[in-house]
Amino acid sequence: MAGDAVSVAPDLYKVLFENDRVRVLDVRYGPGVKSDMHSHPDTVVVALTLLKAKFTSADGQTVDIELQAGEAGFVEAQDHMVENTGTSEIRGILVQLK
Amino acid sequence: MAGDAVSVAPDLYKVLFENDRVRVLDVRYGPGVKSDMHSHPDTVVVALTLLKAKFTSADGQTVDIELQAGEAGFVEAQDHMVENTGTSEIRGILVQLK
Repeated sequence: MAGDAVSVAPDLYKVLFENDRVRVLDVRYGPGVKSDMHSHPDTVVVALTLLKAKFTSADGQTVDIELQAGEAGFVEAQDHMVENTGTSEIRGILVQLK
Repeated sequence: MAGDAVSVAPDLYKVLFENDRVRVLDVRYGPGVKSDMHSHPDTVVVALTLLKAKFTSADGQTVDIELQAGEAGFVEAQDHMVENTGTSEIRGILVQLK
């Protein structure tokens, strides 16, 4: 498994708070920014801006995701790299489930 | 225990999606709007607007909460009434934990 998102990319992922049930992250990617490979547990993503990104898994498969500001989605536990494929900063809240 | 938020106030709480780990709600209160008593499980609140509200519990105790847009907080399982004490619509995403 790849390293934790906050350890691998502390410039992109910041911990807002954590308790025994969740860890909540603020995530920001500038336009064109791409992370190194990292891991997430099961996570609810809440888009604070248009969130248009490409996820690349360890085996090279890619998935394009797009959420409008104010939308939410569920991402199952996985390792991936993320690239902001839009033209402006993307920002979201990640609710990581324990 | 009071009834589920979505059952008690379907005009204020809408289900975005649900799986075996979470139920995710969109919540909107117009200025001055007050709900009836309802229940929530442990919940992460993500504020999409300035979120200024008063929670009143069954025993009459009140708590004022304020989150800026883009902030998140944790609300432990409880019954309460909610009043939008601000002057504009408040909007948020609730990640209800199972």
